[in-house]
This record gives sequence, C-alpha cells and structure tokens, in this order.
Amino acid sequence: METNNSFKVPSGILGRVTGPIVMIGFGSIGRGTLPLLERHIDFDRKRFVVIDPDDTHRKLLDDRGIQYIKAHVTAENYRELLTPLLTNGEGQGFCVNLSVDVSSLDVMKLCREKNCLYVDTVVEPWLGFYFDDKLDTGDRSNYALREAVLHERRNNPGGATALSCCGANPGMVSWFVKQALVNLATDMKLEFTQPKTREDWAKLMQKAGVKGIHIAERDTQRSKNPKPMGTFINTWSVEGFVSECMQPAVLCWGSHEKWLPKNAVKHTKGCQAAIYLMQPGANTRLHSWCPTPGPQYALLVTHNEAISISDYFTVGAGDAPEYRPTCHYAYRPSNDALLSVDEMFGSAGKVQEKFHILDEKEIVDGSDELGVLLYGHAKNAYWFGSQLTIEEARALAPYQNATGMQVTSAVLAGMVWALENPAKGIVESDEMDYTRCLELQLPYLGPVKGYYTDWNPLKNRGTLFPEDLDETDPWQFRNILYRT
Amino acid sequence: METNNSFKVPSGILGRVTGPIVMIGFGSIGRGTLPLLERHIDFDRKRFVVIDPDDTHRKLLDDRGIQYIKAHVTAENYRELLTPLLTNGEGQGFCVNLSVDVSSLDVMKLCREKNCLYVDTVVEPWLGFYFDDKLDTGDRSNYALREAVLHERRNNPGGATALSCCGANPGMVSWFVKQALVNLATDMKLEFTQPKTREDWAKLMQKAGVKGIHIAERDTQRSKNPKPMGTFINTWSVEGFVSECMQPAVLCWGSHEKWLPKNAVKHTKGCQAAIYLMQPGANTRLHSWCPTPGPQYALLVTHNEAISISDYFTVGAGDAPEYRPTCHYAYRPSNDALLSVDEMFGSAGKVQEKFHILDEKEIVDGSDELGVLLYGHAKNAYWFGSQLTIEEARALAPYQNATGMQVTSAVLAGMVWALENPAKGIVESDEMDYTRCLELQLPYLGPVKGYYTDWNPLKNRGTLFPEDLDETDPWQFRNILYRT
Repeated sequence: METNNSFKVPSGILGRVTGPIVMIGFGSIGRGTLPLLERHIDFDRKRFVVIDPDDTHRKLLDDRGIQYIKAHVTAENYRELLTPLLTNGEGQGFCVNLSVDVSSLDVMKLCREKNCLYVDTVVEPWLGFYFDDKLDTGDRSNYALREAVLHERRNNPGGATALSCCGANPGMVSWFVKQALVNLATDMKLEFTQPKTREDWAKLMQKAGVKGIHIAERDTQRSKNPKPMGTFINTWSVEGFVSECMQPAVLCWGSHEKWLPKNAVKHTKGCQAAIYLMQPGANTRLHSWCPTPGPQYALLVTHNEAISISDYFTVGAGDAPEYRPTCHYAYRPSNDALLSVDEMFGSAGKVQEKFHILDEKEIVDGSDELGVLLYGHAKNAYWFGSQLTIEEARALAPYQNATGMQVTSAVLAGMVWALENPAKGIVESDEMDYTRCLELQLPYLGPVKGYYTDWNPLKNRGTLFPEDLDETDPWQFRNILYRT
Repeated sequence: METNNSFKVPSGILGRVTGPIVMIGFGSIGRGTLPLLERHIDFDRKRFVVIDPDDTHRKLLDDRGIQYIKAHVTAENYRELLTPLLTNGEGQGFCVNLSVDVSSLDVMKLCREKNCLYVDTVVEPWLGFYFDDKLDTGDRSNYALREAVLHERRNNPGGATALSCCGANPGMVSWFVKQALVNLATDMKLEFTQPKTREDWAKLMQKAGVKGIHIAERDTQRSKNPKPMGTFINTWSVEGFVSECMQPAVLCWGSHEKWLPKNAVKHTKGCQAAIYLMQPGANTRLHSWCPTPGPQYALLVTHNEAISISDYFTVGAGDAPEYRPTCHYAYRPSNDALLSVDEMFGSAGKVQEKFHILDEKEIVDGSDELGVLLYGHAKNAYWFGSQLTIEEARALAPYQNATGMQVTSAVLAGMVWALENPAKGIVESDEMDYTRCLELQLPYLGPVKGYYTDWNPLKNRGTLFPEDLDETDPWQFRNILYRT
C-alpha cells in the first residue's frame, strides 16, 4: 500500500476542551475521531475516557494512556456511569457520543443537566427499539426519534450546546445543501443576499425552484478480499447500517408532488414534513445520480437529515405548506454492502451472524462520493459534495477509510463550533454556521465540487417495457421510486 | 493455484463423428467443450472447423491444427458459409452451435436438410431480435423462439437428430427434474413404475403433488479481483446473459395458482403453458432456495427450460389444463454478475461498454450450485442438482470454470446421445433418455445430490412490515414474487 504524500496533512489546534472528554463508543468512528482530536483539540489527556463494551481496539487507548472502560451504556446504568466522568475536575466536559444502542436523547439531557457539551452523529434509541415489532412502524422511525429531541428542545431551550446528528450524514450534508444553494442561486444569477434566518433560507430555496434534494452517495471503495457468504460487510458500522436498513423508508414530501405511493403513511404529529413507506428502507430502490457512476440505483435508507433538511427549508408549515422540497437519502453503499443487503433481505430479513467493517488497509481503491443533488430547478440538477478517496483518507489520518473520515471530520468541526458557541442549546446541523463548519472540515474531505447534470429520472426509462411514469414532470417521486 | 488430484479425471471414447464437426462460436462454452470432445469423441481432426468473429483464443486451435474461420455467421451468409463445411467429405457431419446472435432455427434447418446432426444450448435468434422495440414483448420472448422450433418439428418430423437447448439449463436440468421426481416418488413411497411416455411422466408429477419447480441456482464463484465500475462481469457469456436480462420475465403458470400479477400477459398461441411479465427478467426478484445459502433472492430470468419442462409435465393442454406445475428459473448469479445487473438497470438499462467473463484462473473459490427445486408436495420441497466447485472443474478439464463445465458436459452428453440416436428429428432435452444422459455427464458435475428443506416462501415473511401474501398456500407465486 502506497501513501501519496502530495496530500496536505492538516495541523494546528482549533479549540480547547477545559473539562473531561467522555467518548461513548470506540467503533470505526470513535477510532477515526481519536487522531483528529489529538491533532486539533487541546484537552487534558488524564480526563479523556472511552467507554465501549468491545475491547478489540483498546491497545490504541492503552498506548496513549487514555482510560478505557469496558461497559455497555444502558438505560439502567447511564446516569451512574457517566455522571462522575462528565463532572471529573474543573472546566466544561464534552461528551462525544459515537455509539449504537445508546439513547442520544437521554445522554444529551444528562450532559445538559451537568452543563457539558455534547455531540452525536445520529439520534439513537436504547437497544431493541428498531426491531420491536410491538411498536407501530411510525414510532420506530427516525421521524419519531427526531421529534423527541425537538420536544426536549422546546421544553428546555438554551443551555449547554448539544449537537444532534453532526456526522457526515446527517451533519455535513446540511452544510453542503446551503453551499449548493448559494452556488446555484449565484449561477442562476438570482438576486439574493446570504440568508440570515431559517425563513430566509427556505425562501431562497423556493426562489431557486428546487423541487427536491437527494442526499446522493456512491461508495466505490473496493475490498481486496471477495465477500464471504454469511458476513454483512460495510464501510462503517454494520450495526448502525443494519438498523437503518430495517427501518421504514422515510422521506420528506415536497409541495410539488402529485402522486403518493399506495403504502405511504403520513404523520399526524410533529413537523409533518416526512412520510414513510411501509417497507424497509434498504429494500427500497430509487433512481438517483452521482458524478462518477452517473445514473444509479440507490437505496431509500431512512436518515435524520432527510427530515431536518426538508423541515428547515419549508415555507409555511404542516402537511400542506406553501413550499417544501422533497428530500431523502439515496444511498448506493459499497459493492460488498449492497451484496450484504441483498443477502439479508433474500433470507427474509435474517441478519447475518458475522459483521465486518472494511478498514483502510483492506480497501484497494475507491472513494466515498457523498453529496447533495438539488433538482428540478431551471438548471435541471446540481450535485455538490465530497469525493474523498481511500488513498487521500489514508494519507490524512490513521484508523479510518474515506467513509469514516467524512464522519469524523464533521464531528471535529462540530466540536470546534460547539466550543466556539457553547451555550446554544440543542442544535441541528442545519442551524449551525455552515461556512465556519465547512472551513473547519474541508481539509479532510478531498475534492469538494459541484456538478451540473442533464440527467433526470425519466431519461431512457420505459423503452423496452412500459412503466408507470409521470411524463409531465421528470422530478416527481413517482419517477424516482423503483416499483414492480 | 493448487489442483486437487483427488478428483477423478474422466477418460474414454464415448462416440464417433463420421463426418466433419462444425463448431459455431468459440466463446467460453466453445473453448470448454473442445477438450471434452478431444477426450471423448472420435473425430477427424482435419475436418474440425471453428467459426467465430473474435479470434482472441485462436491459438488454442492453431496449436491443435484445427481450422479457424474468422467470421460472423449471419442470415445473409450462413447457407453459403456452412454448407461446404457441413458436407465436407464422407460420413455424417455434426454442427455444434455454441454462438450468440446466430439463429438456431435457421442453422438447425440447414443441418437437417444436409442430414447433419446438430446441438445447441439455447434457441438463439439473429442479431438485434432481443432489443428490437418494434417487436411486441411476447414476440421477442423465449416462448416465441421455442414455438418456432416446435412449429418446424411439426412440419418436418423425424430426420437427422437436432438437439434444441442441450446445455446445463436449458438441458441438464430437464434430466435432473426426472431424476428428482423419481427420487421424490420413491421417498414418498408412491406406487409407480418408471414412466415411458410424456403423458406418464406428467401424471407421475401430478401424483407426487408437485405444485411447481424452480430451476434454483446459486453461483458462489468469487473473483480475486474486485469488480471494476462499468464492466459487466459474468461466469459465462455476457452477451448471452445480457440479452436474457432484458427479455421479459417468463414463467409457466401452474394449475394451482390463484393470483396473477397485474402486469402478466398470457399467450393466445402455442402451448399456452407460459405467461410473461411486462418487466425485464433480471430486474424481477424472487424468493427461492438453494442448499448452500438457504433462502435467497433470485432473478426471474427467462429461460427455455422454464417452458419446456412445464409443457412436458402438463396433464391436459391449453391455458386451463387438468394439471401443470409452475416452472421458472430462479437464478442467483455470481456476486459480480449481480452487481453488474444492478449497475445496468440502475442506469435505466444502458449496457456496460466492457464485458468480462471470470475464467478459471481468476476465480478463487466457490461453486455453481445448479439444480431443480420441486415444491409444494407432501414432503414440502426437494432440491436436486450439481454442486460443482471451481476446484473440481479445474482438476477435470482445462479452459472453463464450474458454470462452463456444467454446460460443456451437457453438450458432450447430448452429442453422444445424438450419435447413439441419429434419426430422432428435433428433440428437446425433456424427451431424451435422462438416465443415459446423466450417466454420460455425471463425471463432470461434482457432487450431485438431493436435499429436502422445510423452507417455504412464507417463512419469516411479513414480520416487521405487512406484505401482500397468500397465507393459505405458501407455494403460490404471489408469495414467491418480490414486489414493492
């Protein structure tokens, strides 16, 4: 494996944590975040503690003299376990929650109670939630999880900053949406000033005529080892992805949509931006587009940002707003992950017994092309995002592949922003200062570029076989959703 | 790469071709057939000629002193090109048609006109047929192609033996169906004697209570090189597979079926055993089962044997027979091929510019598990087939992987049978002596075994999400077809 030294390795302290750092979870993202914190955050090493039930990688911590606690954080033990760690000594603590099966909301509330800063990359529930067939489908969705966080914010505004969902996606992609919109409005020669409020951002999106947004991702990272049968392989947390795979397909429903899938369900509570389909997200295919492959099938995997972005850019409110963009994830995972998904659903959803994350050493090449596709406007469609290769990721920092680095660098940017803005209360990525955040994160994202495309979901469709399409508007979800 | 010498390499002459051998097509199957013919067929090397427009592998022929003609066989030139070759010298010629884009029917007719024997592995049309959007969907189906061959047989019964569709599938699997039925009837302790006529075979299938048959295949052969984007990879002819992928999903409709897909079309002409769905076969997923993976998604790729088997085992006739088994292909191709299919349909059916067949040297491991799943009877379901590994294929003969050897050994068996039965007219594999054919082919098939399973397509279905299922009969096609 060669490392290309032409990539510029970032350096320099960006912020200081005055109290303890408590990292929950030391999976692929925890391990990748560690070297970025060491490089860019000034902290007290003696009060850095990592909690994870799996001690496979504890040597990384032992070598650094970082305390490791082998434990599951549970609904029963989290207060007792975390409180002394968060309040150990002087200064303001920082909880970096990179775990699965640990309630983001409960830990966030505890942190704010103790005036600690907090960041996570997903609204995660306690163990068992996603697979609880006694819960209504809507109640085990990302929509319900986000609404619970919004409810807490309404009840307890202000206070210590807690960043909800500040990874790559959700997270970074919200910053991309704003940058993409500004680029698009500029290229379209719209008259506008940089929006200052949510309402102004939403009006600019409406003015640009954006009908919808795909979080459009193609992971081309390839393993040197062919996938073994019976192992779920991914480029990031398998547990995390599997739980998303099984959740209902969630999307936000744009004001331009004329057709509703027959198994779609609307929400009666909350922001009402989202709907969900009564089918698992990762078994729901879409027609989407990324710069490298061009047109591709992608999976409608549920994600927090699909909801937060669409909600943020809504003009009006409720289930019939004046303007709302359709928004959803359109994820084409790595080849091995796609085969794993096929294997899992092919056995009626029986999850594989073995899990494996492709690390930076076994990936031979490829990139994680992760961006946002703003579509349906006068310039057709515009993709803006990161095209980070495994080669560059390896050169920039250890212990992570390209997928991981897009997440860990967003966590880093979020932490710096929280240190600079320590009393903003509960904050979603859409509400952060996207220019500052991208400035902080950019050195870790490889090429970050915009691409216009003339592709639309009607292109070359329905030639040999008839399809149920809306020929009057290419950008109807009816044309995007794969159906049989 | 190691060769395991514990596999017994077959030997011994099995038949003699007295006239010339004309092999059309020198792709993966042509190359794999060559060493089997050299080993088991007595022929005049000076009158062995191979025709193929692609001369990539001509060295294999030059080294053996076998004549090679670089040419496309076309509707315009086939008579002039083939006639002198087929009639060169004494004895009865044998045309071994292993090509794509060459009309099986026209070449077969020419051969029979010249009293030559003939074998192919598919009813292939002239170039352009499959992608001709001016043809009705039904008219560019395997059903139409088979009916044209049956029409010719009715008009010209008897004469020189021409084997239509005598590869692995179609071909060998028809012999497996008979063997599986005999095994099943024996295990069920049915009173029966070995059937002698088609009608008796159909009655035995009915008596055994078989509701349907999947040609159930799982190709687990894995490449040492990860799939490159933009290349269609397969373990056999990419041209052949791509054309099947794009054709409508074809299946035969069992007399037990209660529900018809809304895009299903019935035929008004011909045997009426088959229906087709107005969607491409390789973009049609099914719930199926093979011994190694257990439950799996498979593709409803159109295949001749789906029709010929079901037609053969029909009691009665027409579109409402007394008894008919549902029958179709349920193909889970190799991982790389599945990714290729996803890539092709993901770009609205745009075929990749590069094609590649995984050869025996780049496959690290795996097998082609190809059999027949007889389901819906008192013992639930029974899979019977070949589990040939790449390791064994490499040990048995050069120039082919496991997939290839299942085809080439069926061609060999068919040729020997034709030499033993030279005046049977046009013959489908279902009508050949399956015990003799399997006896000839068995040394090349690896383990050939039967497996009972308690799996059915309702198993673990509809737990987290509702599905449109028929709970009263697991073996309805409604439960087998994946739908969104």
